[in-house]
Formats: sequence, structure tokens, C-alpha cells
Amino acid sequence: MPENILTPSYGTWRERLADLMESPGITRLVTTLIILNAAILGMETSPSLMADWGGLLQPLDKLILGLFILELALRFIARGIGLLRDPWAVFDCLVVGIALVPASGPFAVLRALRVLRVLRLISINPNMRRVVQALLSSLPGMGSIAMLLGLVFYVAAVMATQLFGEAFPEWFGSLGASLYTLFQVMTLESWSMGIVRPVMEQFPLAWMYFLPFILIATFMMLNLFIAVVVNAMQATHDQEALLAPPSTTEQLLLDELKALRAEVAALRQPRA
Amino acid sequence: MPENILTPSYGTWRERLADLMESPGITRLVTTLIILNAAILGMETSPSLMADWGGLLQPLDKLILGLFILELALRFIARGIGLLRDPWAVFDCLVVGIALVPASGPFAVLRALRVLRVLRLISINPNMRRVVQALLSSLPGMGSIAMLLGLVFYVAAVMATQLFGEAFPEWFGSLGASLYTLFQVMTLESWSMGIVRPVMEQFPLAWMYFLPFILIATFMMLNLFIAVVVNAMQATHDQEALLAPPSTTEQLLLDELKALRAEVAALRQPRA
Amino acid sequence: MPENILTPSYGTWRERLADLMESPGITRLVTTLIILNAAILGMETSPSLMADWGGLLQPLDKLILGLFILELALRFIARGIGLLRDPWAVFDCLVVGIALVPASGPFAVLRALRVLRVLRLISINPNMRRVVQALLSSLPGMGSIAMLLGLVFYVAAVMATQLFGEAFPEWFGSLGASLYTLFQVMTLESWSMGIVRPVMEQFPLAWMYFLPFILIATFMMLNLFIAVVVNAMQATHDQEALLAPPSTTEQLLLDELKALRAEVAALRQPRA
Amino acid sequence: MPENILTPSYGTWRERLADLMESPGITRLVTTLIILNAAILGMETSPSLMADWGGLLQPLDKLILGLFILELALRFIARGIGLLRDPWAVFDCLVVGIALVPASGPFAVLRALRVLRVLRLISINPNMRRVVQALLSSLPGMGSIAMLLGLVFYVAAVMATQLFGEAFPEWFGSLGASLYTLFQVMTLESWSMGIVRPVMEQFPLAWMYFLPFILIATFMMLNLFIAVVVNAMQATHDQEALLAPPSTTEQLLLDELKALRAEVAALRQPRA
Repeated sequence: MPENILTPSYGTWRERLADLMESPGITRLVTTLIILNAAILGMETSPSLMADWGGLLQPLDKLILGLFILELALRFIARGIGLLRDPWAVFDCLVVGIALVPASGPFAVLRALRVLRVLRLISINPNMRRVVQALLSSLPGMGSIAMLLGLVFYVAAVMATQLFGEAFPEWFGSLGASLYTLFQVMTLESWSMGIVRPVMEQFPLAWMYFLPFILIATFMMLNLFIAVVVNAMQATHDQEALLAPPSTTEQLLLDELKALRAEVAALRQPRA
Repeated sequence: MPENILTPSYGTWRERLADLMESPGITRLVTTLIILNAAILGMETSPSLMADWGGLLQPLDKLILGLFILELALRFIARGIGLLRDPWAVFDCLVVGIALVPASGPFAVLRALRVLRVLRLISINPNMRRVVQALLSSLPGMGSIAMLLGLVFYVAAVMATQLFGEAFPEWFGSLGASLYTLFQVMTLESWSMGIVRPVMEQFPLAWMYFLPFILIATFMMLNLFIAVVVNAMQATHDQEALLAPPSTTEQLLLDELKALRAEVAALRQPRA
Repeated sequence: MPENILTPSYGTWRERLADLMESPGITRLVTTLIILNAAILGMETSPSLMADWGGLLQPLDKLILGLFILELALRFIARGIGLLRDPWAVFDCLVVGIALVPASGPFAVLRALRVLRVLRLISINPNMRRVVQALLSSLPGMGSIAMLLGLVFYVAAVMATQLFGEAFPEWFGSLGASLYTLFQVMTLESWSMGIVRPVMEQFPLAWMYFLPFILIATFMMLNLFIAVVVNAMQATHDQEALLAPPSTTEQLLLDELKALRAEVAALRQPRA
Repeated sequence: MPENILTPSYGTWRERLADLMESPGITRLVTTLIILNAAILGMETSPSLMADWGGLLQPLDKLILGLFILELALRFIARGIGLLRDPWAVFDCLVVGIALVPASGPFAVLRALRVLRVLRLISINPNMRRVVQALLSSLPGMGSIAMLLGLVFYVAAVMATQLFGEAFPEWFGSLGASLYTLFQVMTLESWSMGIVRPVMEQFPLAWMYFLPFILIATFMMLNLFIAVVVNAMQATHDQEALLAPPSTTEQLLLDELKALRAEVAALRQPRA
């Protein structure tokens, strides 16, 4: 093979490394490591298991983490920094990188995020990746209605804080508390017995605020969810329609037309 | 430009004013003012922020309100009273006008409504306006089923008041209380542990009233919601179908027909 | 008009009476009476209104009931007993007839059923009648799945009564109590905090019974509801498709074909 | 009838037995027995009925069980072991076989499973069998998204156990407890008043964990359910489309083509 001018001379072994990193063998090995790591992280939540096997589990966890870092490093060597143009590679770097942040002091909560590493199963399994991409691809289409829902929530939260904030500081004391409570009301969880009935004892007309809010918010939320799902199905359906064989009636029409054309052709021949 | 007979002589500058008010520059300015106003109204809900910055926030709020009134006045001058034929202009007038009602004594609650001004974002942003119009345009189609649902609620509320009103005055003491409680039951919030089980302790057969009500009401509500959403999608889909290119089979048929016509034309030529 | 042999001699005035009973004037009058009756029955639920106006409301209620009975009697005279072949007429008779049952002693609950009379609005308003018929017409299609759901409920209730009946007699003490509790669990109302967590304190493995039940029951219920709604839409859609104008591509094909036929016809003429 | 070479000599009477076991008479008899058995098992849950009729009900239950075993034995004799290739026959064997396991000591819970026998109604009724098969046939299509949901649940449960396990052992004390609590949160049952508000009292930022979880989990669950239902409908729709008569426009096209072909044929004849 003649040396390519555009790629530097070390291109060949980098390409071979890239092919190796994507080979089924390595993919299967990484998948196994992820599942093993998921099991270890699950077992680490059990104090009794940790007491008996902690000495084994924690070094194993560290070893697998090391292998993940090695794998990512090899992929970076093979592809260069351009690898980060693939969003799934960025995702892999982030979920593996969390484990490298020192998880002490104010960052202790980061320890709990280490399990996000298991989500690499999505980026390595083509089926799951496709499902996630289908779900994500429908998100932009709902931008307008999500903005509208956000606006309604903001306006409703400011109103609720002004109206009920003083009397019910726990639920409507600040803008944040109101937003949370309104989200709870939208999911219909304890909205009446838990929130609105107590509020109505002090403000008998509070239902004039809450009932319209519930109707509008649940309606828009439903709209949003169904729109996403239907968009995803529409996309699937359109792809199928492009590849669909002609329906029987259309086939009849085509056959009839072809026969007619043969007859017209026959009309010409005798004249020749 | 020759003077138009149908429009009075001051038409020219009014038209220029109308164009100005709809220019992208003014639209962007008003959008910025609305978002700024939203932020200010949000900050005003925080007592600590008000203590520190209240002297700045409240005059700023008043200033923006003044600019909104100025903008509306200019639009009225440009368009005349006919502006009110545009429902979005009526909406703008209402949400801005609320701030002008003296919010004291029995109208103190109107202070909380001032934040509705932020909803002008909908009327000024074409995308959000389109979403709201799509949602609203599907409302008339559900008139019959909404009336039916209203009738079922009314009949059920009268029955509940007569049956359980005396024993449970808080929930079914009046027609209004019954309507509210039935709405809560329809959303399935605490319907059993909160309402029906206590009622059944006194009226063991109360489930014969509540279970059919739940089945009928949730079924009709679901029907109503799905109908609206599907109508909206149907409308989008119909528009797309009108603009759709012919499917591949239909294209095949057309090609076949055109070839046939060419052959028939060829039949005639040799005769000439 | 010569006497018709098939109808007896009093046919003419009965036919005229039938036409009169269905005339817009009478329909509007009855609609007004129903709405008036609805208002009266609503006002009768308020003790204070009854104290002030009871002397007026109750005779008025009786009067309207009398008019309803008169109307039904006239319709029976006009149509004969065959009127009962119309299910809406049977419905009218039932909801009016409830008021004639003596509502005392064990039948006192029937007083509350008198308000069902207001549902005659459905049978007299063609729009609402159509909506109800659309909803009802989709019921037979879900027979199989409703039977299946009933079977699952029965089996689950027998199991729950045997497993948890002794320990939780209030919830699972009898087949009826179990069916009610399982219905509550299916609607997801307080299923965990109210029912399953307390049960799990005594039977730690109870989730192996409840989680599959929730998944199966909600899935089937959802299936049932959506099937009904979609069937109704499908029916509407099919009707529209029958009446739809040809799509633009099909129109193109037709035009092309007609042009071709004209050309073929032109081929023959010069030969003549 | 000449002896078939491929089937052994006892084939004839076995075939006749197989035909007999599937005859409408036997099917109706077994259906009746199942319904009778369902009623008996239902009555056995009532202590008062058992006190009065227990001496009759329990032998009757045993008798019907014996008849079921006899029926299965005959079907095995008729079909041989190959009967187990039919999954419904396996199902019949399992639900009948449960009654034969000694239900004492640690297996006492198996007594409650005897009622599963009633589910044989599904395997014997073609309509219900078809509904169940339609539901089941849509399950494989949702494999990827179910796996994804499982993964999200696992990761979320590990995180919740690490974050909140120590402070709230009842809800998040172990991986299993966390999974159960997260399932409850996903169904929106008491998620806020029951779980998240108490947690937020100790961890004010807990909403940053729970709100995303609720949005992601309910969205995926909805996606999963709707996908299954729509797949089932799609399958029905596709079958109908295959059998559909041509639409009116397509019929017009066909008529036009046939007329054209007749004219072309007429063109040739005069020349003959």
C-alpha cells in the first residue's frame, strides 16, 4: 500500500488500533467489565457484604476503573482529539472521569455518582444507543411547548408565592418552594388532601387558582409527552412507508397499464 | 406618492408608525423588557432581596410598566380602535391593564395578578403564539364531550350532596363542595383512603356510587384529552399530506402512463 | 288524502301528533324544562334556599315532572308501544319513572336518583346523543379484554383473600373487600404507603404479589381505554376517507389517463 | 381406510381420541367445570359459607381437580409428549399441577396459588387466547426500552442507597428497598408528601436527584406502554389493509384504464 500523503506515517498502526478497539472481541470484553462493575457497585451498597468481601471488592472496582481509563486512552491515541466529536465518547469520558475527582469534603456526594459509569452499557450496546437516540431526537420538536410550560410554571409560582407565601411558608415560602409544590400538584400527588384543602381553609377561593392551574398544566404536560412519543413513531412509520411494497390495488393498476402498453406496441408492429 | 382618497391625510405617518411598531428592533426591545420584568417580579417575591434592592426594583418595575403602556398607546395610535379586533392585542391590554387597577382593600389580590404581564412573551413570540393557537383551535371540537362531562358532574354532585351531605359536610355539604370533591376523585387523588373508605364506614354501599363515577369520569376525561391532542396532530398531518411528494408507486404509475402516451403519440406521427 | 289500508283510521291524527312531538318548538320547550328542573334540583340541595323558597321550588318541581309524564304519554299515544324499541325512549321512561316510586323507608335513596332526570338533556340533544353513541359503540369491541381483566381481578382477589385476609380483614377480609382494594391499587391511589408497605411489614414478600398485579392490571386497563378511544377515532376517520376527494397525485393520474383516452379517440377519427 | 405406514397401528384410536378432546362438547364441558371451580374457590374464601357448606365444597373441588387431571392425561395419551410443544398445554399442566404439590409447612402459600387454575379459561376460550397472544406478541418489540428502564432503575437505586440509605433505612436501606421505593415514586404514589419532602428536610438538595428521576422514568414508562399498544394496533391495521377493497379513487382509475384498453382493442379490429 503506497504511503498516503494526507495522513502521517504513523497512520497505519493508529488505524489498526482503532479497528482493534471496535472489534467484537474488545466490545464484548468491555461489556463484561461494565456488567461486572455494576454487580460490584451494587454489592458495595450492602454493609454485610462489604464487611465480608470489602477487601476483594474495592481493589476489583479500582482495577476495572483502571481498565476503563486504559481503554479510553487507547481510543484517544487511535482517533486523536477528534474522538470528542462523537457525543457518546464525551459521555464515556464524563462518567469514567467522575471517579477521578477526589470525593471528600464538599464533594463526598460525587462518590454516589460513580455508579453512572454503568450507563456506559448504553453507549456500547447499539440497540440501547438507538433507543436513546430516538428518544433524544424527538426532544427538539417539543422546544416551543416546553418553553410555554416553563413560562406558565414561572408565572404561577410568582403568583402562588405572593398569594400563599406568608400563610404557608413550607409550601410557597419562596419561588423555589412554589415551583416544587406546583410540580407536585401537576403530578396530582396529594394535591387536594395534602395541599389545596389546607390552603382553602384559610383562602376559601384558592380553588380558583389551583383548578385552572391543574387543568392547564396536566393538559400541556400530556400534550408534550404524547407529542414526543408520536413523533418517534411517525419517524419509524415514515421510514417503513419509503420501503413499503406497492399495495395490491396499485399493483393491479400497474399490471393493467403494462398490458395496455404491450397492446399499443403490438398495434405498431403489424404496420412495420 | 399621490394622496390616497380612501385614507385621510394623516394615514402616511400612521402607517409608518405601525410598521415601526412591528419592526424586529422594537419586537426585540419589548421581548427584552418582558424578560427583565419577569426577573424583577420574581426577585420581588424574596423578602431578603426586597430589603436590599427594593429601592431599585420597584421604580424599575414602574418604568417598564410605563414603557409597556407607551408601546400599547403607540400601537393604538397607529392602528386605531380596530386593533382590538386582534385577540392578542386585547390580551396585551388586559394583562398590562391589571397593574392600573388600584390594588388595595378588596382588590389586594390583584397585585398577584400583575405577573400575568409576563405572559406577553406568548403574544410577542411567533413560535409560542402558534403553539397556543394550535391548542386553542382544538377546543371547539371537544365542545360536545365537555358539555357531557359537565352534565355528568352536575348530576353526580346533586346526588352526592343529597346522599352524603349531612354525614360529611366538609366534602359534600354543598353543591360546590361536592363538585370540588368529585373533581378530586376524578383525578384519583386520595379517592379511596381519603374519601370513599371513610364514607363507606357509614354507607357500606357507597362504592356503588363512586366506582361507576370514577370509571365514567376518567374515561370521558381521557377521551377529551386524547381527542384534543389527536385533532392537533391530525391537522398537522393533513397539512403535510397536501404538500407531500407522490409516493414511489404512484410515481411508477405516472412514469408508465407518460411512456404510454409517448408511444401513442408515436403511433400518429408515422401516419403524417 | 285516501284512507290508507295498512294504518287504522285514527292513523292520521296520531301521525300529526308524532310530528308535533318532534317539532323544534316542543323540543326547545322540553330542553328549557329540563334545564329549569336541573336548576331547581340543584337549589333544593341548599338548606338555606329551601328554607326561603322551598314552598315555591317543590311545587314547581312537581309541575315539571307532570309535564314530563304528559310528554311521554303523548309520545306513547302517537307511536304506540313500539316507542320502546327506541332505547333513548326507554331511557327517558326510566329516569322519569324513578320519581314515581314511593321514596320512603328502604327506598329513601331513590330520592337522590331523581336528579338522573336531568340526563334527558342527552337524549334530546342530537350532538350529545351522538357523542354518547360513539362512546357506547366502541364498548362491544373491548368485550374480550374486559372479560380478561375481570378474570384477572377475580383470581387476584381470591388469592389476596387467602393470603392477607386474616391479617388485614378491613382490606382483604372478604372477596368483595379484596376486589375493592385491588381496584384502588390499580388506580395507584395510596397503593404503597397506604396498603403494600403495611402489608409488607407482616409479609415481607408481599411485593411479589402486588408488583406483578400492578403491572398487569394497569397495562390491561390502559390497553382497554386506549383501544376504545382509538376505535372511536378510527370510525370517524373511515367515514372521512370514504368522502375524501382524490389526493393530488391521484388526480394527476386521472387527468393523464383522460388526456391519453382523448388522444386514442383522436387516432380513430382521421381514419373515418 | 388403509393402514398408514408412517403412524403406528394404534394411531387410529389416538387420532379419534384427539378429535374427541377438541370437540365442542368436551370444550363446553371443561369450560363449565372451570367456571364452577372458580365459583367454588370463591366461596371457599368466606368463613361462614365454609362453615355451612364446606363438607360439600371441598369434595366437589377435589372432584373437579380429578376431572382436570383426567382430561390432561387423555390429551397426553392422544398427542404424546409432543403436546408440550404447545405453550398453552404447558400452561394448563402448570396451573393444574400446583394443586398436587403438598401445601404444608413452607409451601402453605401454594394453597393460594390453586386459584390460578381458573386462568385455564384463557387457554380454552379462543377469543381470550387471541387477546393474550396479541399482548404477548408485542412484548419482544419493547425489549430494548425495557432493558434501558431496568438499567436506569438499577443505577438510580445504587445512588439512592448510597445517598439516603443511612438516614432513611426503611425506604433506601438496601438495594431492594431502594428499587421498591423508586418504583413507588415512578407511579407518583405519595412521592412528594410521603417520600421526597421528608428526605428534603435532611437533604435540601434531594430534589436534584428525584425530579430528574421522575421525569426520565415516567417518560420511559409511558413510552413503553404506548409502544406496546400502538404495535398491537398497527398489526391489526396492517392485516386490514391487506384485505381492504380498493378506494373509490383507485376504482375510478381502474375503470378509466379498462375503458381505454377496450378502445385500443377497438382500434385494432377495424384494421383486421
